[in-house]
Amino acid sequence: MSRIICFGEIMLRLSPPGYLRFVQANSFDATYGGGEANVSISLANYGMDAAFVTKIPDNSIGQAAINSLRQYGVNTDFIVKGGSRLGIYFLEKGASQRPSKVIYDRSNSSIATAGEGDFDWDFIFEGAKWFHFTGITPALSENVRKITEKACIKAKEKGLTVSCDLNYRKNLWSTEKAGKVMGQLMEYVDLCIANEEDAEKVFGIKAENTDVTGGQLDTEGYKEVAKKLKEKFNFDKVAITLRESFSASHNNWSAMLYAEDGFYFSKKYFINIVDRVGGGDSFGGGLIYALINQYDLQEAIEFAVAASCLKHSVEGDFNHVTVDEVKTLIKGDGSGRVQR
Amino acid sequence: MSRIICFGEIMLRLSPPGYLRFVQANSFDATYGGGEANVSISLANYGMDAAFVTKIPDNSIGQAAINSLRQYGVNTDFIVKGGSRLGIYFLEKGASQRPSKVIYDRSNSSIATAGEGDFDWDFIFEGAKWFHFTGITPALSENVRKITEKACIKAKEKGLTVSCDLNYRKNLWSTEKAGKVMGQLMEYVDLCIANEEDAEKVFGIKAENTDVTGGQLDTEGYKEVAKKLKEKFNFDKVAITLRESFSASHNNWSAMLYAEDGFYFSKKYFINIVDRVGGGDSFGGGLIYALINQYDLQEAIEFAVAASCLKHSVEGDFNHVTVDEVKTLIKGDGSGRVQR
Amino acid sequence: MSRIICFGEIMLRLSPPGYLRFVQANSFDATYGGGEANVSISLANYGMDAAFVTKIPDNSIGQAAINSLRQYGVNTDFIVKGGSRLGIYFLEKGASQRPSKVIYDRSNSSIATAGEGDFDWDFIFEGAKWFHFTGITPALSENVRKITEKACIKAKEKGLTVSCDLNYRKNLWSTEKAGKVMGQLMEYVDLCIANEEDAEKVFGIKAENTDVTGGQLDTEGYKEVAKKLKEKFNFDKVAITLRESFSASHNNWSAMLYAEDGFYFSKKYFINIVDRVGGGDSFGGGLIYALINQYDLQEAIEFAVAASCLKHSVEGDFNHVTVDEVKTLIKGDGSGRVQR
Amino acid sequence: MSRIICFGEIMLRLSPPGYLRFVQANSFDATYGGGEANVSISLANYGMDAAFVTKIPDNSIGQAAINSLRQYGVNTDFIVKGGSRLGIYFLEKGASQRPSKVIYDRSNSSIATAGEGDFDWDFIFEGAKWFHFTGITPALSENVRKITEKACIKAKEKGLTVSCDLNYRKNLWSTEKAGKVMGQLMEYVDLCIANEEDAEKVFGIKAENTDVTGGQLDTEGYKEVAKKLKEKFNFDKVAITLRESFSASHNNWSAMLYAEDGFYFSKKYFINIVDRVGGGDSFGGGLIYALINQYDLQEAIEFAVAASCLKHSVEGDFNHVTVDEVKTLIKGDGSGRVQR
Amino acid sequence: MSRIICFGEIMLRLSPPGYLRFVQANSFDATYGGGEANVSISLANYGMDAAFVTKIPDNSIGQAAINSLRQYGVNTDFIVKGGSRLGIYFLEKGASQRPSKVIYDRSNSSIATAGEGDFDWDFIFEGAKWFHFTGITPALSENVRKITEKACIKAKEKGLTVSCDLNYRKNLWSTEKAGKVMGQLMEYVDLCIANEEDAEKVFGIKAENTDVTGGQLDTEGYKEVAKKLKEKFNFDKVAITLRESFSASHNNWSAMLYAEDGFYFSKKYFINIVDRVGGGDSFGGGLIYALINQYDLQEAIEFAVAASCLKHSVEGDFNHVTVDEVKTLIKGDGSGRVQR
Amino acid sequence: MSRIICFGEIMLRLSPPGYLRFVQANSFDATYGGGEANVSISLANYGMDAAFVTKIPDNSIGQAAINSLRQYGVNTDFIVKGGSRLGIYFLEKGASQRPSKVIYDRSNSSIATAGEGDFDWDFIFEGAKWFHFTGITPALSENVRKITEKACIKAKEKGLTVSCDLNYRKNLWSTEKAGKVMGQLMEYVDLCIANEEDAEKVFGIKAENTDVTGGQLDTEGYKEVAKKLKEKFNFDKVAITLRESFSASHNNWSAMLYAEDGFYFSKKYFINIVDRVGGGDSFGGGLIYALINQYDLQEAIEFAVAASCLKHSVEGDFNHVTVDEVKTLIKGDGSGRVQR
Repeated sequence: MSRIICFGEIMLRLSPPGYLRFVQANSFDATYGGGEANVSISLANYGMDAAFVTKIPDNSIGQAAINSLRQYGVNTDFIVKGGSRLGIYFLEKGASQRPSKVIYDRSNSSIATAGEGDFDWDFIFEGAKWFHFTGITPALSENVRKITEKACIKAKEKGLTVSCDLNYRKNLWSTEKAGKVMGQLMEYVDLCIANEEDAEKVFGIKAENTDVTGGQLDTEGYKEVAKKLKEKFNFDKVAITLRESFSASHNNWSAMLYAEDGFYFSKKYFINIVDRVGGGDSFGGGLIYALINQYDLQEAIEFAVAASCLKHSVEGDFNHVTVDEVKTLIKGDGSGRVQR
Repeated sequence: MSRIICFGEIMLRLSPPGYLRFVQANSFDATYGGGEANVSISLANYGMDAAFVTKIPDNSIGQAAINSLRQYGVNTDFIVKGGSRLGIYFLEKGASQRPSKVIYDRSNSSIATAGEGDFDWDFIFEGAKWFHFTGITPALSENVRKITEKACIKAKEKGLTVSCDLNYRKNLWSTEKAGKVMGQLMEYVDLCIANEEDAEKVFGIKAENTDVTGGQLDTEGYKEVAKKLKEKFNFDKVAITLRESFSASHNNWSAMLYAEDGFYFSKKYFINIVDRVGGGDSFGGGLIYALINQYDLQEAIEFAVAASCLKHSVEGDFNHVTVDEVKTLIKGDGSGRVQR
Repeated sequence: MSRIICFGEIMLRLSPPGYLRFVQANSFDATYGGGEANVSISLANYGMDAAFVTKIPDNSIGQAAINSLRQYGVNTDFIVKGGSRLGIYFLEKGASQRPSKVIYDRSNSSIATAGEGDFDWDFIFEGAKWFHFTGITPALSENVRKITEKACIKAKEKGLTVSCDLNYRKNLWSTEKAGKVMGQLMEYVDLCIANEEDAEKVFGIKAENTDVTGGQLDTEGYKEVAKKLKEKFNFDKVAITLRESFSASHNNWSAMLYAEDGFYFSKKYFINIVDRVGGGDSFGGGLIYALINQYDLQEAIEFAVAASCLKHSVEGDFNHVTVDEVKTLIKGDGSGRVQR
Repeated sequence: MSRIICFGEIMLRLSPPGYLRFVQANSFDATYGGGEANVSISLANYGMDAAFVTKIPDNSIGQAAINSLRQYGVNTDFIVKGGSRLGIYFLEKGASQRPSKVIYDRSNSSIATAGEGDFDWDFIFEGAKWFHFTGITPALSENVRKITEKACIKAKEKGLTVSCDLNYRKNLWSTEKAGKVMGQLMEYVDLCIANEEDAEKVFGIKAENTDVTGGQLDTEGYKEVAKKLKEKFNFDKVAITLRESFSASHNNWSAMLYAEDGFYFSKKYFINIVDRVGGGDSFGGGLIYALINQYDLQEAIEFAVAASCLKHSVEGDFNHVTVDEVKTLIKGDGSGRVQR
Repeated sequence: MSRIICFGEIMLRLSPPGYLRFVQANSFDATYGGGEANVSISLANYGMDAAFVTKIPDNSIGQAAINSLRQYGVNTDFIVKGGSRLGIYFLEKGASQRPSKVIYDRSNSSIATAGEGDFDWDFIFEGAKWFHFTGITPALSENVRKITEKACIKAKEKGLTVSCDLNYRKNLWSTEKAGKVMGQLMEYVDLCIANEEDAEKVFGIKAENTDVTGGQLDTEGYKEVAKKLKEKFNFDKVAITLRESFSASHNNWSAMLYAEDGFYFSKKYFINIVDRVGGGDSFGGGLIYALINQYDLQEAIEFAVAASCLKHSVEGDFNHVTVDEVKTLIKGDGSGRVQR
Repeated sequence: MSRIICFGEIMLRLSPPGYLRFVQANSFDATYGGGEANVSISLANYGMDAAFVTKIPDNSIGQAAINSLRQYGVNTDFIVKGGSRLGIYFLEKGASQRPSKVIYDRSNSSIATAGEGDFDWDFIFEGAKWFHFTGITPALSENVRKITEKACIKAKEKGLTVSCDLNYRKNLWSTEKAGKVMGQLMEYVDLCIANEEDAEKVFGIKAENTDVTGGQLDTEGYKEVAKKLKEKFNFDKVAITLRESFSASHNNWSAMLYAEDGFYFSKKYFINIVDRVGGGDSFGGGLIYALINQYDLQEAIEFAVAASCLKHSVEGDFNHVTVDEVKTLIKGDGSGRVQR
């Protein structure tokens, strides 16, 4: 079984219990998460050999972050210890018309202040088959941008498939900066994952001459965006997730995969949301799993969407579902009947 | 007030808090439940004299199970102490497309290993009017099958009404075994309760020549199943619950009662689910209450369905609602306005 | 910034966790609330100078009530200490067809037994601009009725705007008594707030000659009620909240404001309910805020309804939302997308 | 097995979790307790037929109080429903030099406002052998004083043994009032239980001519108090508990029993306190159990003290220990070694 | 009532529940605290007009910190909003031989990055009588050192009494740096508070020619340290707390006050520890209260020590005790008997 | 780094929160533990390469047990999936004179019903240096006894050091059976660990001709027991833990190590107990660590005792302490001062 390497930041996530607002909280539920860490967890839960690479402080909070990965089978052997702090994000869970709210406290984290010498990519990529990162990682600092670039170069040299989730974060950089940096990195990327906003935010790519006839419009628009992305960066595949937010409690969720031979649209799910954070990452994890296991493309997009549909019912950033559970949903059983 | 005797297993139910998955749980909410115990609780909550009969280990966990029944007024005088363990079931609550999941750990429980000498049915049935069991109980072990049969024989001798909820459990026995054993026991049963699958699973009875014209189909199908059941086993009444599972969060819920003089269909409720386990048992409890208190049949099925509709909003196996609360719902107030 | 004075009772609110029923509770979540206290919190959360006036016992429970107000910036300088107890209300949260249930234990509270000498309204109203009370307060006791009347008289003398939320509570008094007492107090009231039932319960005012043509009916009826109220008591403005209760889990929520120059209807929101208690009070708080800050009337009713829409997603009596959050919703973003 | 009847008040007890102070509490642990209720629980836990008699409001909070008794096997058949509220007490757990703190909110409870017609003592005492009450009960109201007196008269008529724990509560009455009322009731009492302060507070009885030689002093003093009590009221037996409070965390605990044939002193225990409330009641429960089961007097006082020693390690008012556990401690095993 | 101004940092404190270690924690109890904030809370709890001055980020976490102060009556009007984050400290509670463990994550907090223009000391000190800071504050950054110095100068100009708790924190600066900076600031200080290590760590002052005769040694040593401190910096008073740590569960606690007219030693308390953090701050708060209220010096040191003794039984950084509770302990009642 | 292999059972441990008794519990804290699993955790926490070998059911509960080991770095690659259930033990935490109580529900666990073919010891021991088991494992079933024997034989063949903690469990077998089985297995054991009772219970070895002079007695007795054990089974080393149980809250803890060159006694610790379960296992883990890292024998016994002293302050079966923390305690710092 070949290894998938995910590189990025893992943060301590602090959430008030239930639907309490920050100002009402007397305790925080403590879990860990981050774009690429979440992907590594999905893959480990599917039985894959997934390793997460980052730098964390050499204290008990850093150790707890490592433990949260090991617990679910992620390989943490390449995690570097040092630096001064673990990034934190505070998450207040929304409901109905009140949105979930994130307060980031991630500056000066161990990974954001990591140096190029901290990671020996030759060693890390030994026996690996796939490299995954997101647009969050190069945004952390100039240093991390360089490290990411180095990793990409080395990954391509070694013949790994490279995937990137654009994941634009406005707190970390401007759209201009993002566009410039990400544009350079896209050269190494085989599979590009984006949500309905990322392409525009990062690369200014949006649908132009869409056929304005009714419900088909969006679909055509996303097709166009995917096409432009593929053309511009010569991606092997482009995947776009499609979220319709009715409220913090209910969303529709589906996605599209675009490859040489055409467009693949998934089924659409109406979701009662338990925890929406990490939804996109679970899509990425599902898609990588499906592609690495050579699912055909329609199956692949269905697997990724069903997996991330289930994520919305799981607390925390991590998607704790098995391949069997995803397949059951794909086969059409979303009835929620008790499994005895 | 005449007594209702319920016989079966009561288990420790261990559930992760909220919507956590098993692998995320660091604690379990501990309650108690089981098909017939749940019925006895419903009846006690309606002010009836309900006794639950079982065997539990002579330790604090067994005592806690007894206490959970006494707390709500169930008579526990006939519970036998001995054997080695209380059965356990782990319940993970589902949401949206993710189904609830049950892991049974009930083998070798005190009741499953009970002997025929443990229960003196003459004594137990003294002053009793009704005997209730489910298809789970004879499935526990050959011994318990015999005990159940003995209880049925004795109940009929003493003129009790006997009700049985088919409740097929695939982990306990095959459909073949279930069909054979239950077929023998049905001879003693006056009121047969089943959900939309049980009749087929246990007795292979399903609708055949249904009129395939639209929405009427199901209704006709269930009528046919009820008729066949009644014919085959000469039941006095047959009740079938009708669940439409849209997801683990939303269900439709209604039921049908069939007696000599015809079919009675209840109102249908659209339910936001808090805890779905014990839904069928609360239907049984409501129906027995209504029949014992000589509600007319339409009222009876409305009471049973409204009672079990409310159960879906109550945590745990037990249905904690009063007769007044059920009647308020039947009268049409499902508006959920605050009761001050 | 001019001060708003809110006068009434604050109670200890005891709720079983989650959706547990009272008989299942082994702990109670402890918060504080009460009609006018809730309004004062809304205003303080909007940055206003809001003071809450009441009498509480001189013990730690009373102190905790004060602290709960201070915590969110409400001025508690005019709260009198003495008397024997803090009123309590027990709240069981409903779900689906099961309604929320309130058990009041508020008799003989410090405020209900307060004397006229306890409050020096001249002092309290110094620098104040607005006085708010609800129909609950004069219902507490004859003494408190007198105190309320005195406050109203003094408020008008000093040129304050007076608002009153009719808030009929059947446990506290009969409709007859309410009609008589409230009728007298209405003389001092500029802004009258009512829900869809209050006007009828308190003043026997209901829609009569409504145009029975379809969906317009209700609207016309409420217009008529508002007109009659205004005519009878010469109010400056009348606001009526419109709740459609589908279940304890889902409501529609909107409102109407009536002033000299016509009727203003708000947008209607479909709400997934987290905690419905205090919904009306948060409407009052939003409306007072909007009027005091001279929003035009359409904006005012939109602000009040959006604020109280958000309240339904917040645990406890208090509405913890900011002006910005309300405005975001008014502008149309109820999509619940994560705010990073 | 003859029945023991305990009469008094049961209250909702609300405690902040752990060692939180009232002003820090965002939730309260909810249990139930009261002097005589606690005794009835002790007896039921020893397998005795104990009934608790009181009046509680006909609402869910009252029902939960009943359930808390039924749960542990106390007979609640004689509990009357009605009146307006269940008494409440707030308990803040102390530690080290900080004492535990109780805030009573028990006025106007259903039992305090009960009438003489509420209790049919002829019926209640049918088949009973023992009647127990404390000094708290007649202090609740004049009505309850009369009811208690009537119960005492009837109990003696029917040949029951009567026990009373003096239990002086300064919030309920003055020492003068207590002395007068309790003096009248003592006429009916066979077993008088007191702690080191009660005799002085209620009857002004304290040690006078004590031999001032060192450590013997206290012992002789308590002997003298017991003697005086016995002489004055012609008790059959007098029991005095002896608490040495080093801090809220550590106490010494022992007791003395005085009867015709002499003084019996128990072993003394050094206790790490988990929950000290109900300590005296568990002593009463242990003593009644021992006497009713005809333990010799040394055994009886050892049983009572060992039982109440264990109570200090049990959360809540109720003493959840078995006869076997008490006996194990008496036999000398207080080593706390794990029982596997 | 004159105002006391406390200046420093308030942090979010995150503690695993109970005695869990960091690596076991799935949630953190969230409270707020910091040396000077803790002092302001003590003073507010004694009914003083205490204001806390700091800079916090303009987000919900910063707001929650403000609220935690307002809740207990601290004046927060002078708190400046801005900067990027609230400092955090993680606290793992120790027991027995395992020490409590603190992980600081306070770098780049809003206060540490505050500028001199953020605080208008003329305005802040209007009507104030006392200024308090600790050695932690000038250690936060060069900027904050300057701000502290400016505050000291302005405080002396305006005739305020200035107190400083040396509070050496090795994570923030070296002993050399501390000595230099604190040496300069001591010029403005009237009351110097130190624990048994601070004087040596910060100023290199330790007992030299102590009389080596047994138990007297320490006492003489501390006298000498106090003398040297007073001589060197011309303090009006020097207070030294004396902690004997037997384990994380048990400490002895006492203190000494040194003024012109001699040495005052307090009673010594043996403490069962609930939460030891903030113990020194509660001593400072008690001492300032006593001195401002012109207690004589023996009374003052007894008040400060008794107050801080009680703090060890209170969860969180803040000392929630009243003047009456402290006085009760001083009078000798540390028996922990239940206060009803 | 050479691997240590631990073989045995891991169970789900269910404990009521805090000091609640079983009959009071509405939830259970869920952790995992077992004699040898606990040892493997200790070793992993010290940075060793420790593997735990067992069989667990292929369901989420089994997976959670694996995850609890992986989380802390234990190698779980050799764990076999299958069988029907994970063993459970219920633990009620004692306090003061009330002992902790264990209810086992471990029969028919996957490991107890494992077959010899489940474990390939050649493969498992590859690269391993040490094999550890306890007297619990061969007691689980005849099958497991055989498997253990096979493992011992193979371990010795491969040159591994073998350690065994006698750990007699009376619920699993008689002393006779234990003596016979363990006697056979001792042939392979190099390091024998026992507590003060095991040697007598399992092998009937107790001190005989002890010098009855005062405090030396026990010491001499334990020396004699160690000598006899060593002689009888030709052990390389014998370690005996010495617990003095004053109560469930306080114990003394020390130990003795006996080798060719003499007896080594550790320091004795007075412990305030947080969680006593796993204390012996943490001693074993510490001793193996020290010996494998070639500590001298006095250092080794000090390390093992200090490590297990700290365990008593850690919740759960697992000892979460680092080598540095143990060394700090050995150096004499048990003062519990806050580590900042």
